[in-house]
Amino acid sequence: MDPERLESQIAFIVEIDGLKQVLRQSLLLADGRQENDAEHSWHLATMAILLHEHAAGVGVDLLRVLKMLLIHDLVEIDAGDTFAYDEVAQRDREAREAAAAQRIFGLLPGEQGEELRSSWEEFEARETPSARYAAAMDRLQPVLLNLYSGGGGWRRHGIVKKQVIDYNRQIGDGAPALWEWVRERIERAVREGVLPD
Amino acid sequence: MDPERLESQIAFIVEIDGLKQVLRQSLLLADGRQENDAEHSWHLATMAILLHEHAAGVGVDLLRVLKMLLIHDLVEIDAGDTFAYDEVAQRDREAREAAAAQRIFGLLPGEQGEELRSSWEEFEARETPSARYAAAMDRLQPVLLNLYSGGGGWRRHGIVKKQVIDYNRQIGDGAPALWEWVRERIERAVREGVLPD
Repeated sequence: MDPERLESQIAFIVEIDGLKQVLRQSLLLADGRQENDAEHSWHLATMAILLHEHAAGVGVDLLRVLKMLLIHDLVEIDAGDTFAYDEVAQRDREAREAAAAQRIFGLLPGEQGEELRSSWEEFEARETPSARYAAAMDRLQPVLLNLYSGGGGWRRHGIVKKQVIDYNRQIGDGAPALWEWVRERIERAVREGVLPD
Repeated sequence: MDPERLESQIAFIVEIDGLKQVLRQSLLLADGRQENDAEHSWHLATMAILLHEHAAGVGVDLLRVLKMLLIHDLVEIDAGDTFAYDEVAQRDREAREAAAAQRIFGLLPGEQGEELRSSWEEFEARETPSARYAAAMDRLQPVLLNLYSGGGGWRRHGIVKKQVIDYNRQIGDGAPALWEWVRERIERAVREGVLPD
Protein backbone atom coordinates (compact mmCIF):
# COMPACT_ATOMS: atom_id res chain seq x y z
CA MET A 1 0.00 0.00 0.00
CA ASP A 2 1.13 3.52 -0.83
CA PRO A 3 1.09 5.47 2.48
CA GLU A 4 0.70 8.83 0.72
CA ARG A 5 -2.36 7.54 -1.08
CA LEU A 6 -4.01 6.54 2.18
CA GLU A 7 -3.05 9.87 3.76
CA SER A 8 -4.81 11.72 0.91
CA GLN A 9 -7.90 9.60 1.35
CA ILE A 10 -7.98 10.24 5.10
CA ALA A 11 -7.44 13.98 4.54
CA PHE A 12 -10.44 13.98 2.20
CA ILE A 13 -12.60 12.07 4.70
CA VAL A 14 -11.68 14.59 7.40
CA GLU A 15 -12.33 17.55 5.07
CA ILE A 16 -15.83 16.39 4.14
CA ASP A 17 -16.86 16.42 7.79
CA GLY A 18 -17.61 20.03 6.80
CA LEU A 19 -20.70 18.92 4.86
CA LYS A 20 -22.43 18.64 8.25
CA GLN A 21 -22.10 22.43 8.58
CA VAL A 22 -23.85 23.38 5.33
CA LEU A 23 -27.42 24.37 6.15
CA ARG A 24 -30.32 23.99 3.75
CA GLN A 25 -33.74 25.64 3.64
CA SER A 26 -35.60 22.41 4.47
CA LEU A 27 -36.84 22.05 8.05
CA LEU A 28 -36.67 18.77 9.96
CA LEU A 29 -39.98 17.23 10.93
CA ALA A 30 -39.34 16.66 14.64
CA ASP A 31 -37.99 20.04 15.72
CA GLY A 32 -38.13 22.39 12.73
CA ARG A 33 -34.40 23.09 12.68
CA GLN A 34 -32.71 23.52 9.30
CA GLU A 35 -31.44 20.32 7.73
CA ASN A 36 -27.79 20.10 6.77
CA ASP A 37 -26.30 18.61 3.60
CA ALA A 38 -24.95 15.46 5.25
CA GLU A 39 -28.36 14.59 6.71
CA HIS A 40 -29.98 15.36 3.37
CA SER A 41 -27.49 13.19 1.45
CA TRP A 42 -28.07 10.28 3.82
CA HIS A 43 -31.83 10.60 3.42
CA LEU A 44 -31.62 10.66 -0.40
CA ALA A 45 -29.37 7.62 -0.60
CA THR A 46 -31.64 5.64 1.72
CA MET A 47 -34.70 6.72 -0.30
CA ALA A 48 -32.99 5.59 -3.50
CA ILE A 49 -32.71 2.06 -2.07
CA LEU A 50 -36.34 2.04 -0.92
CA LEU A 51 -37.90 3.49 -4.07
CA HIS A 52 -35.74 1.75 -6.69
CA GLU A 53 -38.76 -0.15 -8.10
CA HIS A 54 -40.31 3.19 -9.11
CA ALA A 55 -37.34 4.31 -11.24
CA ALA A 56 -38.12 5.13 -14.86
CA GLY A 57 -37.34 2.51 -17.52
CA VAL A 58 -34.30 0.26 -17.41
CA GLY A 59 -30.64 1.04 -16.96
CA VAL A 60 -30.72 2.45 -13.45
CA ASP A 61 -27.63 1.19 -11.65
CA LEU A 62 -28.30 1.50 -7.92
CA LEU A 63 -24.64 1.50 -6.89
CA ARG A 64 -23.97 4.34 -9.31
CA VAL A 65 -27.02 6.21 -7.95
CA LEU A 66 -25.83 5.84 -4.36
CA LYS A 67 -22.34 7.07 -5.23
CA MET A 68 -23.81 10.14 -6.93
CA LEU A 69 -26.17 10.93 -4.07
CA LEU A 70 -23.55 10.52 -1.36
CA ILE A 71 -21.16 12.98 -3.00
CA HIS A 72 -23.51 15.29 -4.95
CA ASP A 73 -23.41 18.12 -2.41
CA LEU A 74 -19.73 18.04 -1.46
CA VAL A 75 -19.06 21.12 -3.59
CA GLU A 76 -21.34 23.05 -1.23
CA ILE A 77 -18.66 22.81 1.48
CA ASP A 78 -17.07 25.71 -0.40
CA ALA A 79 -19.94 27.01 -2.54
CA GLY A 80 -22.70 26.90 0.10
CA ASP A 81 -26.24 25.69 -0.46
CA THR A 82 -28.14 27.57 -3.17
CA PHE A 83 -31.85 27.73 -2.33
CA ALA A 84 -33.90 26.05 -5.05
CA TYR A 85 -36.22 29.02 -5.54
CA ASP A 86 -33.57 31.77 -5.35
CA GLU A 87 -33.23 32.71 -9.02
CA VAL A 88 -30.48 35.26 -8.49
CA ALA A 89 -28.20 32.90 -6.57
CA GLN A 90 -28.90 30.12 -9.09
CA ARG A 91 -27.24 32.23 -11.82
CA ASP A 92 -23.66 31.91 -10.60
CA ARG A 93 -24.15 28.57 -8.87
CA GLU A 94 -22.37 26.62 -11.61
CA ALA A 95 -19.25 28.77 -11.51
CA ARG A 96 -19.04 28.64 -7.71
CA GLU A 97 -19.51 24.89 -7.68
CA ALA A 98 -16.97 24.22 -10.44
CA ALA A 99 -14.28 26.01 -8.43
CA ALA A 100 -15.26 24.02 -5.35
CA ALA A 101 -15.10 20.72 -7.27
CA GLN A 102 -11.59 21.58 -8.39
CA ARG A 103 -10.36 22.08 -4.84
CA ILE A 104 -12.31 19.38 -3.00
CA PHE A 105 -12.00 16.44 -5.42
CA GLY A 106 -8.39 17.54 -5.92
CA LEU A 107 -7.59 16.43 -2.38
CA LEU A 108 -7.93 12.78 -3.42
CA PRO A 109 -5.37 10.67 -5.30
CA GLY A 110 -5.59 11.67 -8.98
CA GLU A 111 -7.68 8.96 -10.59
CA GLN A 112 -9.96 8.66 -7.56
CA GLY A 113 -10.63 12.39 -7.54
CA GLU A 114 -11.41 12.20 -11.26
CA GLU A 115 -13.84 9.36 -10.67
CA LEU A 116 -15.77 11.27 -8.02
CA ARG A 117 -15.74 14.40 -10.10
CA SER A 118 -17.17 12.56 -13.09
CA SER A 119 -19.83 11.02 -10.87
CA TRP A 120 -20.79 14.54 -9.71
CA GLU A 121 -20.85 15.76 -13.32
CA GLU A 122 -23.07 12.84 -14.32
CA PHE A 123 -25.49 13.79 -11.54
CA GLU A 124 -25.52 17.46 -12.59
CA ALA A 125 -26.08 16.66 -16.29
CA ARG A 126 -29.09 14.38 -15.64
CA GLU A 127 -28.57 12.60 -18.94
CA THR A 128 -28.28 8.98 -17.82
CA PRO A 129 -31.18 6.99 -16.32
CA SER A 130 -29.21 6.64 -13.08
CA ALA A 131 -28.65 10.40 -12.83
CA ARG A 132 -32.30 11.13 -13.57
CA TYR A 133 -33.42 8.77 -10.84
CA ALA A 134 -30.86 10.26 -8.42
CA ALA A 135 -32.06 13.77 -9.28
CA ALA A 136 -35.65 12.69 -8.65
CA MET A 137 -34.67 11.75 -5.08
CA ASP A 138 -32.98 15.13 -4.64
CA ARG A 139 -36.21 16.90 -5.60
CA LEU A 140 -38.61 14.57 -3.82
CA GLN A 141 -37.03 14.70 -0.39
CA PRO A 142 -37.49 18.45 0.28
CA VAL A 143 -41.06 18.17 -1.05
CA LEU A 144 -41.73 15.45 1.53
CA LEU A 145 -40.27 17.54 4.35
CA ASN A 146 -42.51 20.41 3.26
CA LEU A 147 -45.64 18.31 2.88
CA TYR A 148 -45.20 16.64 6.26
CA SER A 149 -44.37 19.83 8.16
CA GLY A 150 -47.43 21.72 6.96
CA GLY A 151 -45.40 23.52 4.28
CA GLY A 152 -42.82 24.87 6.74
CA GLY A 153 -40.05 25.73 4.29
CA TRP A 154 -42.41 26.92 1.53
CA ARG A 155 -44.28 29.19 3.90
CA ARG A 156 -41.09 30.73 5.21
CA HIS A 157 -40.12 31.83 1.70
CA GLY A 158 -43.59 32.58 0.29
CA ILE A 159 -43.38 29.81 -2.33
CA VAL A 160 -46.54 29.14 -4.41
CA LYS A 161 -47.87 26.10 -6.25
CA LYS A 162 -46.52 27.03 -9.69
CA GLN A 163 -42.95 27.32 -8.37
CA VAL A 164 -43.18 23.94 -6.67
CA ILE A 165 -44.48 22.28 -9.81
CA ASP A 166 -42.00 23.92 -12.20
CA TYR A 167 -38.99 23.14 -10.03
CA ASN A 168 -39.94 19.57 -9.17
CA ARG A 169 -41.34 18.46 -12.51
CA GLN A 170 -38.12 16.56 -13.22
CA ILE A 171 -39.12 14.00 -10.59
CA GLY A 172 -41.27 12.67 -13.46
CA ASP A 173 -38.21 12.07 -15.66
CA GLY A 174 -36.60 9.82 -13.08
CA ALA A 175 -39.63 8.26 -11.39
CA PRO A 176 -43.01 8.92 -13.07
CA ALA A 177 -45.12 7.18 -10.40
CA LEU A 178 -43.54 9.31 -7.70
CA TRP A 179 -44.24 12.50 -9.62
CA GLU A 180 -47.87 11.45 -10.00
CA TRP A 181 -48.04 10.93 -6.24
CA VAL A 182 -46.43 14.35 -5.62
CA ARG A 183 -48.85 16.09 -8.00
CA GLU A 184 -51.82 14.72 -6.06
CA ARG A 185 -50.29 15.77 -2.77
CA ILE A 186 -49.59 19.26 -4.07
CA GLU A 187 -53.24 19.62 -5.02
CA ARG A 188 -54.23 18.47 -1.57
CA ALA A 189 -51.79 20.94 0.04
CA VAL A 190 -53.39 23.73 -2.00
CA ARG A 191 -56.89 22.64 -0.93
CA GLU A 192 -55.76 22.53 2.69
CA GLY A 193 -54.27 26.01 2.49
CA VAL A 194 -50.71 24.76 3.09
CA LEU A 195 -49.50 25.98 -0.31
CA PRO A 196 -50.93 29.11 -2.02
CA ASP A 197 -52.37 28.54 -5.51
CA MET B 1 -48.42 0.22 -8.93
CA ASP B 2 -50.01 -0.63 -5.60
CA PRO B 3 -50.86 2.72 -3.94
CA GLU B 4 -50.80 1.23 -0.43
CA ARG B 5 -47.31 -0.06 -1.06
CA LEU B 6 -46.06 3.40 -2.01
CA GLU B 7 -47.85 4.95 0.98
CA SER B 8 -46.01 2.53 3.31
CA GLN B 9 -42.70 3.41 1.69
CA ILE B 10 -43.36 7.14 2.06
CA ALA B 11 -44.45 6.67 5.68
CA PHE B 12 -41.15 4.89 6.36
CA ILE B 13 -39.14 7.65 4.64
CA VAL B 14 -40.92 10.25 6.77
CA GLU B 15 -40.42 8.21 9.96
CA ILE B 16 -36.67 7.87 9.48
CA ASP B 17 -36.27 11.65 9.40
CA GLY B 18 -36.03 10.97 13.14
CA LEU B 19 -32.51 9.56 12.70
CA LYS B 20 -31.34 13.19 12.47
CA GLN B 21 -32.39 13.63 16.11
CA VAL B 22 -30.31 10.79 17.58
CA LEU B 23 -27.16 12.27 19.09
CA ARG B 24 -23.88 10.40 19.36
CA GLN B 25 -20.84 10.96 21.56
CA SER B 26 -18.60 11.98 18.65
CA LEU B 27 -17.94 15.68 18.23
CA LEU B 28 -17.83 17.38 14.82
CA LEU B 29 -14.51 18.86 13.77
CA ALA B 30 -15.66 22.36 12.85
CA ASP B 31 -17.74 23.34 15.85
CA GLY B 32 -17.52 20.54 18.43
CA ARG B 33 -21.25 19.86 18.49
CA GLN B 34 -22.41 16.25 18.88
CA GLU B 35 -22.82 14.34 15.65
CA ASN B 36 -26.17 12.73 14.91
CA ASP B 37 -26.82 9.29 13.44
CA ALA B 38 -27.85 10.53 9.98
CA GLU B 39 -24.63 12.52 9.58
CA HIS B 40 -22.63 9.56 10.87
CA SER B 41 -24.35 7.12 8.46
CA TRP B 42 -23.67 9.43 5.52
CA HIS B 43 -20.01 9.71 6.50
CA LEU B 44 -19.60 5.92 6.81
CA ALA B 45 -21.20 5.19 3.45
CA THR B 46 -19.02 7.77 1.72
CA MET B 47 -15.92 6.38 3.44
CA ALA B 48 -16.84 2.88 2.28
CA ILE B 49 -16.73 4.07 -1.33
CA LEU B 50 -13.40 5.84 -0.84
CA LEU B 51 -11.61 3.09 1.09
CA HIS B 52 -12.96 0.03 -0.77
CA GLU B 53 -9.50 -0.90 -2.03
CA HIS B 54 -8.37 -1.47 1.59
CA ALA B 55 -11.10 -4.03 2.35
CA ALA B 56 -9.87 -7.42 3.56
CA GLY B 57 -9.74 -10.28 1.05
CA VAL B 58 -12.31 -10.82 -1.67
CA GLY B 59 -16.08 -11.00 -1.56
CA VAL B 60 -16.83 -7.45 -0.41
CA ASP B 61 -19.92 -6.29 -2.31
CA LEU B 62 -19.93 -2.49 -2.18
CA LEU B 63 -23.67 -2.11 -2.86
CA ARG B 64 -24.40 -4.50 0.01
CA VAL B 65 -22.01 -2.53 2.24
CA LEU B 66 -23.70 0.78 1.41
CA LYS B 67 -27.15 -0.63 2.11
CA MET B 68 -25.98 -1.90 5.50
CA LEU B 69 -24.31 1.36 6.45
CA LEU B 70 -27.22 3.56 5.41
CA ILE B 71 -29.70 1.63 7.56
CA HIS B 72 -27.50 0.22 10.36
CA ASP B 73 -28.53 2.85 12.93
CA LEU B 74 -32.25 3.13 12.17
CA VAL B 75 -33.08 1.06 15.24
CA GLU B 76 -31.61 3.87 17.34
CA ILE B 77 -34.61 6.05 16.46
CA ASP B 78 -36.35 4.06 19.19
CA ALA B 79 -33.44 2.52 21.10
CA GLY B 80 -31.17 5.60 21.26
CA ASP B 81 -27.44 5.61 20.71
CA THR B 82 -25.48 3.38 23.08
CA PHE B 83 -22.04 4.85 23.79
CA ALA B 84 -19.33 2.45 22.69
CA TYR B 85 -17.49 2.54 26.01
CA ASP B 86 -20.57 2.38 28.27
CA GLU B 87 -20.44 -1.26 29.41
CA VAL B 88 -23.66 -1.10 31.42
CA ALA B 89 -25.78 0.27 28.59
CA GLN B 90 -24.19 -2.20 26.16
CA ARG B 91 -25.72 -5.09 28.16
CA ASP B 92 -29.34 -4.53 27.15
CA ARG B 93 -28.57 -2.89 23.82
CA GLU B 94 -29.50 -6.01 21.82
CA ALA B 95 -32.93 -6.35 23.41
CA ARG B 96 -33.74 -2.64 22.96
CA GLU B 97 -32.63 -2.71 19.34
CA ALA B 98 -34.51 -5.90 18.46
CA ALA B 99 -37.77 -4.33 19.62
CA ALA B 100 -36.99 -1.22 17.60
CA ALA B 101 -36.24 -3.28 14.48
CA GLN B 102 -39.61 -4.98 14.84
CA ARG B 103 -41.49 -1.68 14.84
CA ILE B 104 -39.42 0.34 12.37
CA PHE B 105 -38.80 -2.22 9.62
CA GLY B 106 -42.42 -3.29 10.14
CA LEU B 107 -43.59 -0.01 8.64
CA LEU B 108 -42.43 -1.14 5.19
CA PRO B 109 -44.24 -3.54 2.84
CA GLY B 110 -43.61 -7.08 4.15
CA GLU B 111 -40.81 -8.41 1.95
CA GLN B 112 -39.05 -5.04 1.79
CA GLY B 113 -39.07 -4.74 5.58
CA GLU B 114 -37.65 -8.26 5.80
CA GLU B 115 -34.89 -7.39 3.37
CA LEU B 116 -33.80 -4.34 5.37
CA ARG B 117 -34.03 -6.26 8.60
CA SER B 118 -31.83 -9.02 7.25
CA SER B 119 -29.34 -6.44 6.00
CA TRP B 120 -29.24 -4.97 9.53
CA GLU B 121 -28.77 -8.45 11.03
CA GLU B 122 -25.95 -9.18 8.59
CA PHE B 123 -24.24 -5.98 9.73
CA GLU B 124 -24.66 -6.82 13.42
CA ALA B 125 -23.38 -10.40 13.00
CA ARG B 126 -20.15 -9.33 11.22
CA GLU B 127 -19.79 -12.77 9.64
CA THR B 128 -19.63 -11.87 5.93
CA PRO B 129 -16.70 -9.98 4.34
CA SER B 130 -19.11 -7.15 3.43
CA ALA B 131 -20.36 -6.84 7.01
CA ARG B 132 -16.82 -6.90 8.39
CA TYR B 133 -15.77 -4.12 6.05
CA ALA B 134 -18.91 -2.11 6.89
CA ALA B 135 -18.23 -2.58 10.62
CA ALA B 136 -14.65 -1.38 10.11
CA MET B 137 -16.03 1.91 8.74
CA ASP B 138 -18.34 2.21 11.76
CA ARG B 139 -15.36 1.90 14.10
CA LEU B 140 -12.91 3.97 12.07
CA GLN B 141 -15.05 7.09 11.68
CA PRO B 142 -15.37 8.00 15.38
CA VAL B 143 -11.65 7.30 15.81
CA LEU B 144 -10.93 9.82 13.03
CA LEU B 145 -13.18 12.45 14.65
CA ASN B 146 -11.35 11.90 17.91
CA LEU B 147 -7.87 11.97 16.39
CA TYR B 148 -8.57 15.16 14.41
CA SER B 149 -10.22 17.03 17.29
CA GLY B 150 -7.39 16.47 19.74
CA GLY B 151 -9.23 13.56 21.38
CA GLY B 152 -12.40 15.58 22.10
CA GLY B 153 -14.83 12.71 22.68
CA TRP B 154 -12.28 10.47 24.44
CA ARG B 155 -11.25 13.22 26.81
CA ARG B 156 -14.86 14.03 27.70
CA HIS B 157 -15.41 10.47 28.89
CA GLY B 158 -11.95 9.72 30.32
CA ILE B 159 -11.20 6.99 27.76
CA VAL B 160 -7.69 5.46 27.77
CA LYS B 161 -5.54 3.75 25.14
CA LYS B 162 -6.44 0.17 26.09
CA GLN B 163 -10.17 0.84 25.67
CA VAL B 164 -9.65 2.41 22.26
CA ILE B 165 -7.56 -0.53 21.08
CA ASP B 166 -9.88 -3.22 22.47
CA TYR B 167 -13.01 -1.68 21.05
CA ASN B 168 -11.62 -0.83 17.63
CA ARG B 169 -9.50 -3.92 17.01
CA GLN B 170 -12.18 -5.28 14.66
CA ILE B 171 -11.19 -2.64 12.12
CA GLY B 172 -8.40 -5.12 11.39
CA ASP B 173 -10.89 -7.86 10.46
CA GLY B 174 -12.49 -5.71 7.77
CA ALA B 175 -9.57 -3.58 6.62
CA PRO B 176 -6.12 -4.61 7.95
CA ALA B 177 -4.21 -1.69 6.39
CA LEU B 178 -6.56 0.79 8.02
CA TRP B 179 -6.11 -0.84 11.42
CA GLU B 180 -2.34 -0.63 11.00
CA TRP B 181 -2.72 3.09 10.25
CA VAL B 182 -4.99 3.57 13.28
CA ARG B 183 -2.54 1.74 15.57
CA GLU B 184 0.24 4.10 14.56
CA ARG B 185 -1.97 7.12 15.10
CA ILE B 186 -3.06 5.88 18.52
CA GLU B 187 0.60 5.60 19.54
CA ARG B 188 1.19 9.11 18.31
CA ALA B 189 -1.87 10.38 20.22
CA VAL B 190 -0.48 8.80 23.38
CA ARG B 191 2.96 10.40 22.81
CA GLU B 192 1.27 13.77 22.25
CA GLY B 193 -0.78 13.49 25.43
CA VAL B 194 -4.12 13.37 23.56
CA LEU B 195 -4.93 9.86 24.84
CA PRO B 196 -3.80 8.59 28.28
CA ASP B 197 -1.74 5.38 28.20
